[in-house]
Parts: sequence; C-alpha cells; structure tokens
Amino acid sequence: MISSIPSIHEKLSQAREPIEAWLQKQWKKIRPPIYTSVDLRDSGYKLTSVDTNLFPAGFNNLAAFDKQQAPKAARYSIHQWVPTCQKILIITENHTRNLYYLEHLAHLRTILVEAGFAVKLASLSNVAQQLTSPSGQLITLDSLERKSNYLQAGNFVPDCILLNNDLAEGILDLLSGIIQPIFPSPQFGWHQRLKSNYFQYYQKVCETLALMLQWDPWWLHPLYTQCEDVDFKQGTGHETLITKTQGLLDQIQEKYNTYDIQQKPYVVIKADSGSYGMGVLAIENIEALNQLSRKKRNHMLKTKGNQIIDRVIIQEGIPTLTRYQEKVAEPVIYLMGGQVIGGFHRTHSTRTAQENLNSPGMELTPILFGKPLVNQDTALNNAHEKHLTSYRIMAQLATLAAAIEINNNVDILATE
Amino acid sequence: MISSIPSIHEKLSQAREPIEAWLQKQWKKIRPPIYTSVDLRDSGYKLTSVDTNLFPAGFNNLAAFDKQQAPKAARYSIHQWVPTCQKILIITENHTRNLYYLEHLAHLRTILVEAGFAVKLASLSNVAQQLTSPSGQLITLDSLERKSNYLQAGNFVPDCILLNNDLAEGILDLLSGIIQPIFPSPQFGWHQRLKSNYFQYYQKVCETLALMLQWDPWWLHPLYTQCEDVDFKQGTGHETLITKTQGLLDQIQEKYNTYDIQQKPYVVIKADSGSYGMGVLAIENIEALNQLSRKKRNHMLKTKGNQIIDRVIIQEGIPTLTRYQEKVAEPVIYLMGGQVIGGFHRTHSTRTAQENLNSPGMELTPILFGKPLVNQDTALNNAHEKHLTSYRIMAQLATLAAAIEINNNVDILATE
Repeated sequence: MISSIPSIHEKLSQAREPIEAWLQKQWKKIRPPIYTSVDLRDSGYKLTSVDTNLFPAGFNNLAAFDKQQAPKAARYSIHQWVPTCQKILIITENHTRNLYYLEHLAHLRTILVEAGFAVKLASLSNVAQQLTSPSGQLITLDSLERKSNYLQAGNFVPDCILLNNDLAEGILDLLSGIIQPIFPSPQFGWHQRLKSNYFQYYQKVCETLALMLQWDPWWLHPLYTQCEDVDFKQGTGHETLITKTQGLLDQIQEKYNTYDIQQKPYVVIKADSGSYGMGVLAIENIEALNQLSRKKRNHMLKTKGNQIIDRVIIQEGIPTLTRYQEKVAEPVIYLMGGQVIGGFHRTHSTRTAQENLNSPGMELTPILFGKPLVNQDTALNNAHEKHLTSYRIMAQLATLAAAIEINNNVDILATE
Repeated sequence: MISSIPSIHEKLSQAREPIEAWLQKQWKKIRPPIYTSVDLRDSGYKLTSVDTNLFPAGFNNLAAFDKQQAPKAARYSIHQWVPTCQKILIITENHTRNLYYLEHLAHLRTILVEAGFAVKLASLSNVAQQLTSPSGQLITLDSLERKSNYLQAGNFVPDCILLNNDLAEGILDLLSGIIQPIFPSPQFGWHQRLKSNYFQYYQKVCETLALMLQWDPWWLHPLYTQCEDVDFKQGTGHETLITKTQGLLDQIQEKYNTYDIQQKPYVVIKADSGSYGMGVLAIENIEALNQLSRKKRNHMLKTKGNQIIDRVIIQEGIPTLTRYQEKVAEPVIYLMGGQVIGGFHRTHSTRTAQENLNSPGMELTPILFGKPLVNQDTALNNAHEKHLTSYRIMAQLATLAAAIEINNNVDILATE
C-alpha cells in the first residue's frame, strides 16, 4: 500500500541505537511506573500508542518465556521506589468473578513472589474471599483494614501497595492519606485521569525524540483533540464535536496528502476517562456522526463503572496493517519498570482494520519477544526482529510519557 | 463380604468425639510435622495407613475447595516451629522436568504465599533454572548458596527451609550444620529413614488409642515384620525372607479366623527405604515367592535414586474395598500441621484390589472434604460423611506417628 516510503519498522530499527541511548538518558532522570501496558496500532507508515494502561490486567496472556524476565524487572522497579520493600499488597478490581481477571492476578502475584516479595491481595469491596483461578491457583482476597494511616490485610502490613484497580468510581476514603506508597497513585484512577492529558505528554515525548532524529513526529503519535460538555443522549455539544471532528479529519487528510497515502481518513472518538473498550466510536465523516444509530449513541453514554461520558478525546484513526493468521491484529505490550516483559496480539476475526479490536470475540496470542524464531526464511526473521524492536521502542516511549504524567513534569525532556 | 461386623467407618464415626479429644491432647504434647501425606487402605473391616510421606508431592491434586484451608494450617504450623518466620525456602526434588512435580511446586508455593510468607525455591542440583508449570505458573529455581552456616538463594536468606526432596541419595554436605531450621530434618530422608521404624511408632499409636477404646488395634494398623540382608539378585537372605513371610501369612490367617474373614491372606514386600511405588511386591504364598519371575525380581533390586534394596518390610496386604467409578481406589490424605487439607483417590483401571495402585496408569480424583454432597440420597450422604471422618482420623493417627518418629519419643503417648 505504502511502498513509496520505508516502513516505520525499518526506520525505528535503523535508529535503534540512538533511540535506546536517548531512552536510557530519560530513565536516569525519571523513574518509570512499576507496571504499564501499551496498546499499539501499526499502519505501516506509522506506529503509535493509542492507549497506555496504568492498571494493567492480562499478565496471564504473556508468553511464558518472556514472563521469566518479569521478576527481575519487577524487583528492580519496586526497589527503585521503595528500596527496603519486602511485603506488597495488591489491591484488585472488584470484578473478581471474572475468571480471566483471577488468572491475571495469579500470574501477577507469581511475578512478585518470584521477585522475592511476600504478597497478599485484597479488594476494595473489602470482602474476604477465597477463590480459585481457572488454572487451579488459590487466590485469597483478604479483608482490607486501615489502622491509623496504614493499610493492612489481617496482620500483614505491606511496605507498599500495588493498585490494580483503576478506581473508575472514585477514590475511597480508605485510600486517602495512607502513609505507605501506593503505585500508581490513586489520583491516576479513571475517575480523574484524562486520556487527553496523557496524550499531551506522549506527543511531547515523540516530538522531542523526532527532533533529535529529524523525523516527522507524526510517524510516532496520533493526531488528537478533545471535546468537553458532550452529551450523546441529549445531543448537546454536538456542534462543537462536529467542528472538532471535521478539523481533525482535515488535518489527517493533509498528512495523507504529504505522504501520498491513498486511504480515507477516520477518527476514533473515545471517552476521555475510562477504558475496557467501552465508549469507542470510529467515524469517517460528519454524516456518520449526524446519523448515529440509537445503539451506537447508547454505547457512548456510559463507560465502565457507569461513569457518564461528558468529555471525549477525538483521535486519528490508525488502520491496523498487522495480521495474525489472516485476522486483523493489534499489539499490546507489557512493561515493568519501563522494561518490556512481553505482550500479545489482540486479534479479531469479524472486525476490520479500522475498528476497535478490544471487544467481545477478540483472541489473544502471545508475542514471543525472547525466543528466536525457528523459521528458515531469513527475510521473514529479519522482518519479525524489526517488528519486535519497534514494539519495544514504542512501548517505552508510551511508558516514558506515563512517567512524565505521573510526575507531572514535562520539563525533564528538556534537561540533560 | 464382612456383613457380620460393623465396618471400621461405622466404628470410627461412632467414636469420633473421644478420638478427637485424645488427638487434641497428643497435639498439645508434640508438634506435628509441617506437611505429610498418608496412603490409606480400606478393606471394610480395617482402615490403616500403609505409608506416610514426610516429603509429600501432589498438592496440585487436592480439591480447590479444600486447599483453601491449607494456608491457615500452614501458617499455624510453621509459626509453631518458627514463630518469627517470614521467609521460606523450598528445596525441591531434582526431577524438575516432571511436569506434575512442577505443578505441585506451584500449588505448594501458592499455599505458603497465601499464608503470608515470602517464598523462593531451589534444587540441590543447584542449577538456577526458569521453568513453567503446565498451568502456566512461572517457577524459578534459584541457585543455592551456603554462606558460613546459612543457606540462601541469591540474597534471599530464609528463616526456615522446607525440604521437599526426600534425599534418597544421601545428605549433601551443603545441608549439614545449617543454622536455619530444616523441615523435616534431613536425617529423615530415604537414605536413612526406615518404613519399619515408622510402623513401630504407628502401631504404638494405634495400640494406645485402641486400649482407650477397648478395640482390637489390628483394625487400625497392618501387621508387619522386617527382613535385613536380602539380595534379590543373588538370592541371598531368601530363606529368612520365606520364614518371615510365612510367619506373617499365618498371623494374618489367625486374625481372619477370629473375624471369620473369607479371603486369602497376602503380604506386600516393600523396600524398607524409599518410595514412589518402586520395589513393591504382593505375595499370596511361598511358592509365588520361590518362583518370582525375572521381571519381578529385577523390580525388587533398586528403588528411586538407584538405591540397592537390601532391607525390606513385609506388610499385611489390605485388599482395598474402595471403588471410584468401578475402579479400585485408595485414599491419599494430605495434612499440614496435622490438619487435613485435602486428599484424592488414587484409582487404577487395570489393577486388582490386592495390588499396589501407585503405578503407571493410575488416575487421581480429588476427595471433597469441605463441600457437602449435593446427593439427595441421605443414606449415601451419611456413608460419605463417615468415610471422610474415618479418613481424617486415620490420617491424623499416621501423622501423630510421624511426629513421634521425628521427635524420637514414643513416651509422650504414656504421659498425660
């Protein structure tokens, strides 16, 4: 399709050394979050994060081979923040009836256990429960207690708390003013966090790197804008939404003209807070936005935790070129302490290259980062290697932006 | 078959209260081992331990529902021995290529993690390895280091060591004179431990309890004798073996006469050290012993770890009355700190009621201790309850004998 320009994988692989050196320099200035997962979209001419999760689930889907690196990364990262840490409490989501989530918890716990920590789990619903993951691992959720300003599970007093609950419904008083460090800080829960705020940092990261490489930063980040006071039910704010959507479509078309990209621009409209693939809409033109079906409109009313959607981010749509066994796919990469510990392809057999793949019917296939391919075809192997290299780089850029978001300090990019 | 006398389950269930009170009294005098598994055989007229494992594997086979009780039992038991324990090192078997064993390790580790301990694993082969259990749990075997008289895994210095390696090949110097407590003590490894020594304590336990209840202790323990200097290859020691076997067959027949049991006595000849179902022979008469096939003779030469068999225990054969889905079955019960945490039926479709079921082709089905049966048939439910009660009691008697063996103090049975 885009044979005229070298693929982004080619470019990233060629610039690997200066990019990694630059990343190393950034990680000396700012500590990466303990864990993140990064959704990438790859259209050949660009590769970019479209979402960075600060409360990742799905650790069970990583390749066993790659997961082996995770305990080391976890230990290093946690000791960066809490050098004397021995005991960790994981605060889980409340939806512990979700068997995939339970399996995720079993794997996340194993990584921390393997890293040498004593680990307990508790949920904010604060009901002590004994559960079993699909693979047969026992998962006890202890009841959470607050004693003065310390959180504890029974008589287990953790040295730090790993939040695996995205707090879509708000910060509980229970978590306010706790002396033990909480990662990530509860203020980055989805009750408050804005994708548009994150993408401002992400764009800045990409621009800084692109300046150094003399690249167009657009190869690395999606164009976006945001829109407040939208009400998909009442239809209020619709005009602003239309104006902004049209503006973004025009911007994309301009870029397409520059690179002679022969496809139709589209945007993705998402709730500015929240995730789980809810409240996501792909739009090719204003007519489609004007004639939204009742079903699609309803889909945009609320996100997880019944939060009403009143702010959206309008993001450049990036058609996915990635295919896994002939199904459209997008890579999801997991990091601990800013180091890639694995990932998977999210594939969907009934979706198109333009659509959101995080939806019922998706399948997950581990990406093997550490294991060399047994393929005899050198060209194929090289292409695979280049993909892994560019996934690694982009996932780290996205995580660097999250580190800046968490520290609220974009200035570090300017300092030496 | 034995309709003239009430089943042992009936008897044990009726005497449940005084037995449990008696057991409670014993546990106040002696600390139970941290973990044991007990092989039972149930012939209706008697129910007895035929082997008590001090290095149990197979924790993965327990019912999830029952395993939920295990962390509490583990915590209580470990704190009984090491009140300040926070970090535990599990020393594993070397056969870590056995996927069942890896799965066992994942489950054993989870129980200790759930109990609030930091847990690491290492094998005596001392090769740092990263493995994955069949259910996908990451298992890192750290390399084991000795620093002066402390064992550690990397910079993880455990407060106590849980030995899950039966030391069939002897105690390594590495384990000698270690300051941290090791459970069970390496001296109870199979290089040194004798079944006949254990059964002496077990019989004493049964006799003491039977005296209190005015029972025949034979209902609770197998008759046995031992025989040294046997060489199945050279045929030396054969005459003593014949004499002792005949003596035991006669003893069993006498008991059968007393209770009018209409079946043919048989004995089981086993290596006095070692396990894993190797070196086990069922014999109905002296002719069979004289005409041992070459194959059976070879089977009796060596046990696990290539240890030459030169001492055997000759044990009363207890035909199993237990059936699970029409296959012969025997219960295997797991305890932590003397409390039952679950068990399973070991079944075999091609073996008879007289044979050893711990052999290739066996299947394991969890016994549900905690979960009430949903069966509408009250009589069936009652029978099931009685079985569970008697399994619990017998597994505790067997573990009490192991506690006495470990403390080498049979006198505690006599003290108040």
